[in-house]
Formats: sequence, structure tokens, C-alpha cells
Amino acid sequence: MLNFNYSIPTQILFGKDQIEALGDQVKKYGSKVLLVYGGGSIKKIGVYDKVVEIFKANNIAFWELGGIDPNPRISSVREGIKICREKDIDFILAVGGGSTIDCSKTIAAGYYYDGDPWDLVTGDAEIEKALPIGTIVTIAATGSEMNSGAVITNPETNQKLVYGHPAIAPKFSILDPTYTFTVPTNQTAAGVVDIISHTFENYFTRTKGAYLQDRLAEAVLKTCFTYGKTAIDEPKNYEARANLMWASSLAINGLLAFGKNAIWSMHPIEHELSAYYDITHGAGLAIITPPWMEYVLDDETVDKFVEYGVNVWDIDKTKDKYAIAHEAIDKTREYFRSLGVPLTLKEVGIGEEKLEDMAKAVIEHSNGPVGDFKPLNYEDVLNIYKKAL
Amino acid sequence: MLNFNYSIPTQILFGKDQIEALGDQVKKYGSKVLLVYGGGSIKKIGVYDKVVEIFKANNIAFWELGGIDPNPRISSVREGIKICREKDIDFILAVGGGSTIDCSKTIAAGYYYDGDPWDLVTGDAEIEKALPIGTIVTIAATGSEMNSGAVITNPETNQKLVYGHPAIAPKFSILDPTYTFTVPTNQTAAGVVDIISHTFENYFTRTKGAYLQDRLAEAVLKTCFTYGKTAIDEPKNYEARANLMWASSLAINGLLAFGKNAIWSMHPIEHELSAYYDITHGAGLAIITPPWMEYVLDDETVDKFVEYGVNVWDIDKTKDKYAIAHEAIDKTREYFRSLGVPLTLKEVGIGEEKLEDMAKAVIEHSNGPVGDFKPLNYEDVLNIYKKAL
Repeated sequence: MLNFNYSIPTQILFGKDQIEALGDQVKKYGSKVLLVYGGGSIKKIGVYDKVVEIFKANNIAFWELGGIDPNPRISSVREGIKICREKDIDFILAVGGGSTIDCSKTIAAGYYYDGDPWDLVTGDAEIEKALPIGTIVTIAATGSEMNSGAVITNPETNQKLVYGHPAIAPKFSILDPTYTFTVPTNQTAAGVVDIISHTFENYFTRTKGAYLQDRLAEAVLKTCFTYGKTAIDEPKNYEARANLMWASSLAINGLLAFGKNAIWSMHPIEHELSAYYDITHGAGLAIITPPWMEYVLDDETVDKFVEYGVNVWDIDKTKDKYAIAHEAIDKTREYFRSLGVPLTLKEVGIGEEKLEDMAKAVIEHSNGPVGDFKPLNYEDVLNIYKKAL
Repeated sequence: MLNFNYSIPTQILFGKDQIEALGDQVKKYGSKVLLVYGGGSIKKIGVYDKVVEIFKANNIAFWELGGIDPNPRISSVREGIKICREKDIDFILAVGGGSTIDCSKTIAAGYYYDGDPWDLVTGDAEIEKALPIGTIVTIAATGSEMNSGAVITNPETNQKLVYGHPAIAPKFSILDPTYTFTVPTNQTAAGVVDIISHTFENYFTRTKGAYLQDRLAEAVLKTCFTYGKTAIDEPKNYEARANLMWASSLAINGLLAFGKNAIWSMHPIEHELSAYYDITHGAGLAIITPPWMEYVLDDETVDKFVEYGVNVWDIDKTKDKYAIAHEAIDKTREYFRSLGVPLTLKEVGIGEEKLEDMAKAVIEHSNGPVGDFKPLNYEDVLNIYKKAL
């Protein structure tokens, strides 16, 4: 186990009707709020009206930035910063999924930076402070509600980059599983894949002796495999939605990564797919993950796949190591298939045309080989893309 | 899954040599420190000297309160408050195990209360604020370093009571597994039992659908069962000490209890043993736990024991439910035996004399039946004590 510093400062209000605490929470930090949201589903499910009602009852003034796209653009960030400055905003409330939250985090940091906020994403400028933000989560997926990371896309440069800073961690997040009852099947499925993938990134590492962290990761994986299909078949199953929602936060709030050298690899490989083709992140991950697993499986990594197969999929541990590993990978793919997500690049309309460009971009954006479990160079990434065709 | 509010504000600095950060951490909060510790083992292992060196290098003034006993007394709390007031202390650093930390927490809260600090423990007076505290942990056991609870004993009234308040949660805790290399065998064993017991208290509940929390609890249990004996056989095994240390914090920082109705029962039954006989808390828990399990096992609780047996002990799930349950209980007892902890009251010199008094006290201090998994009345508790003879 490696040394680590643990700090997860976000307060979580989890469960039905926790929105009732919104007024008190916001008033701890401000009274002039930028309300950020996506495509309008928050109006359909009544969360928008409830937020407005609470703001009015608490004399909280607010301005709106709606229409945040999946794979949120730096242009939306710029727009949000402009409103915050014009209206002297002192708190940002993100209502939605990871895209809305990540956009809000970047507005919060960009507010205090004089240059273009893209500099903060690329790391060309340093974040010094950020407006306080809170979130109301409407889909179980990115886990952005409980961490200090964000992903922003710049279509002008074909870049989709991850960055992080403690200042952008939400002060509080309201997680009401009933808000996810109406999430469409394909988005529920993509969200489950995202949670699983975050957990894989933290689980498949070369760090020895982080036994507890690995068992915690398996707990999150089992939760996804147990409830993912249920949430699709019975969208209003509270138990399924609640377990997935809490799993999504724990998968990526640091708990599974503390003490491990968790250098991600599947995400960077996927990020170019959604940067170049604007496909759903979770769909891209479902396409990339099984080929990645098959590609990195070798004598040095096989034991980790055995651990995964035996502990998560209950595969007979007396079998041959490689047999267990392949069975575990097959079960992962079958599980993704049961969720109805795409499993090949062709299914999302991606051909061979840009594979080389994307593989090159993966290496560039990673500043060298990707991942640490089995470090991947340009040829490796290209081969994984090809296996995914 | 029940609603919950999650807030774990303590920052954890985990790993070898993390003490180097002590000066910077303390200076965030104050410059006049009360250094609280126990029987002097911190001098033997060099932590005391290191703390003094860091304090001097950072111009931090400090006063000492040493000699805190296991099952810390309210008298030590009173003494600490007196020093804090006389010396105008602005920060408390607890170096040691749960007793030292719990005593420090209570000094921190008592500092701001004009009456006797025992009122804060009994709940006769409310905590309003507390001095900031930090901890350096030297044994993996109570998990007090990452939560807002404390246990204090009043020998005058034969009371050992638990209380809690957000204000007494440590600001930071330094967890260096190497500090636990020299913990004697019996204390290492008692600590492991304590971690296991905290996890059991959160695991054995009637709450349905908190699947993720139960899998997380199993992760902590497996960690204890994997590394407890190793830490005894190879005291300087870093991997074992590190996993146990992190397990001790996660077992009782809320993570396993959020969303569950975790009303403890083994701890209240044990607390009277150590209140009346001053035995080691972990030893008392090892004595109480298997009889408690056997006593509460019935048609309503058997499925939870099956879950425990199959998931934690890998017992064949096709067996009869009660066979699995009994096998799981037997394995728990055998595991405790392998650690060398006492398994009967007789072994720690407790006879039948005070069983009735203690059973009565358990009910009194719980204000009614104990626990929720299977609520226990006076006769039940007495029967468990008798089974433990």
C-alpha cells in the first residue's frame, strides 16, 4: 500500500426528499446563485420547479445557464463565467449529471481567473480559488458530485481533457435516487458502465498490498453487476437506483484509489472517441473495456484478472489462471451486452478513418505511454482501437 | 437503504513518515498545544521525540498530559481541561490509541463548558463547540481518529458511556503503520477484534437493500481475517499493519453505517464488562461476540448469517441455512482463538457475581432493549453473559 492523503470534504445528503435541505445548504455560502443544468429533463421531473420554489422561499436570487451538452464545451464555461461576473454570483448550483457538474466546476474556477478558462483545463494556468458549488444529481454515472475533478471538451482543438483541483470539490451534493427513475434506458446503461469503468481503473493496477482497497472496489463492482440490469428493467426500483447512485460516488471519490498507483488507461483511450465523434462516454467505455482487458492480459497481469474473476464473478478458483481471466472478461462483455450498450466501434458509426489520429492524440494527451497496469504506447492503443472495430 | 447525511471531514495522512507534515497541520489551527498520550510507549518508539523536535522547529509551544489509561477516566479529562484553561491552549494533539484520542476529544469539548465535563458525556449538557484536535495513531483498533464519537469511563458511577458530536471530529489524523510494529501481541489481537466488532455492529442489522454498504463491510472483515494473525506472527509486516490500520478507520467512520439502522448491541453488552472489571475492550468483545451471535440466530436473522458465512468465509452456499450460520459463527470463534484472545468470562476472572448488575446496567444505559438486529431485554443480556461464562 502506498502513502496517501485522504480528504473528501463534500457533504452528501442522500435519499428521498433530501432536496428539502437545499435552502439551508445554499445559504451557508451565498445568496446569488447561478443555476446550471442540461437539456431540460430537470423540468420534466419537477426538480427545476422545486429548486425555484426553495430559492423563492429563502430569498435566494438566481440566474440560469441551461442547455449544457453532454461532453460539456469550454464555450458553455465561458458563458457561465460571464453571467457570474455580470450578476456578482456567489454560489453555483449544478442540477444534472457529470456534464453539468463539470461545467459548473470549471465556471467556479474560471470566475477567479482573468485569462481564458481553457488554460485551467490544460494546466497552462493554475487554479487559485473557486466559487463554492453544490450539486443535485439526476443520473448515477460520473461521480463528479463527490470529487475535485472535471472533464471539459474543446471542439476547436478536438480535445477532451481531465483536470482537478481541491477548490472545485462541491460543498454539498444532494443524491435523491428517485430523480434517476426517469433516466432513459441507454443513459442508465451508459452510467452503469461508467461506474464500472471508474472502478476498473482503480482496481487494475500494479500496486501490491492494497488489499482493503481492492475488496472495496469489488464491493462497488458487485453492486453494479447486481443492480444495473434491474435499474433498466424496473426503472422505479428504489433499491437498485439507490445502490447505483451511491456506488457512482464511491467509485471515484478517492476511496478506491488511495494507496494505489491508479494511472488510468481505458478513459484516456475512450476520451478521444468522444472528442472526435461526440459519442456517449459510457458507450465508448463499453466498447473499449473488453478489448483493453484482452490486450493487457499477460503473465504479469493475469493474477489480477484471476482475483477479479474469482472474487467478483465467483469463478471456480481451481481452474487454470488464463481460463479464469478469459471467463471474467467474457462475463464482463456479456454483462455490457445485457445492458444493451454498443460493443463495437462500428455500432456507433466509427470506422478505421481516424484510428491513427486518435491513437496519436491519446499518447500526446497522456504525455507518453498510457496507464501503468500495462503501459501502452501508440501501437498498443491503435491495436486496441482495431480490436474494438 | 435509508436516507443519510454523509460528512467525514477529517483529513488522513496515511503512511510511513507522514509525521513530517505535523508542523504544517498544527499551525493551521494553533500554536499552543496540549500533547496528550498514554503510558509512554510513544517515547519508546521515538514518536514523542519526533513530535517535540517538530514542535520546536515550528515554534509551537506545548504542555503535556501523559498517563491516560485504557478506558480513559473522566478525571483525566478534568485535568486536561484545567491545563488548557491555565495555559490558554488552542490545539490538542492526541498521540496514542482510542483512549488517548477519546480523552482528548472530551477535553476539547469540555474546555468550552463551564460545568463538569461528565455532563457532556451523559448528555445532560450539550456540546456547543470544541478546541480543534489532531491525532497520531499508534494502534489499529478504535477508529476514533476518523469520527466524532468517544467513550469515557466514570469509575465513581461504574459508567462507561459513548457520546458523539461533530465538533470533536479530529481535523487531521496521521496514520503511520510503522508506529504499530511494536504493539504487543495481546493489544494487536484486541485491536483486530475491536475492528471486526465495529464492522459487525454495522453489518448485522435489519435494514434491507443497503447492498453496497454490506459488501463494503465484508471488505473490511476480510481484511481483518486476512491480516490479523499475520500482524501477530510478523509484527513488522507493513502490508498487514497498513491494511489493519486503514480498516480500523473505515470500520467506524460512518461509511459502513450510512443508510442502515445500525443500533449497536455487542458493544453496550461489553461496555459493562470493562466498566465493572476494567478488562481490555477488545478482549471483552471477543468473549461476547460468539455467544451473542448464537443467541440472536433465529428464523428472522439467519439469512444475514448466511450472507456473512458465504461472502466472508466462502462457505458452500448450497448447504442448509442454519448449517452455514453455525459454521460461520464457529469460524469467527476459531479466528478469535487463533489470535490468542480470551473466549470466556472465566479467562478474564469474571464470575457470576455481577452478571445481573451488569445486565441491568446494560438496559439502563441503553434506555430500553439493546440493539435492533434482535432487540435484547434484561433476560436476553443476562443469558448472553451466562453463555459467555
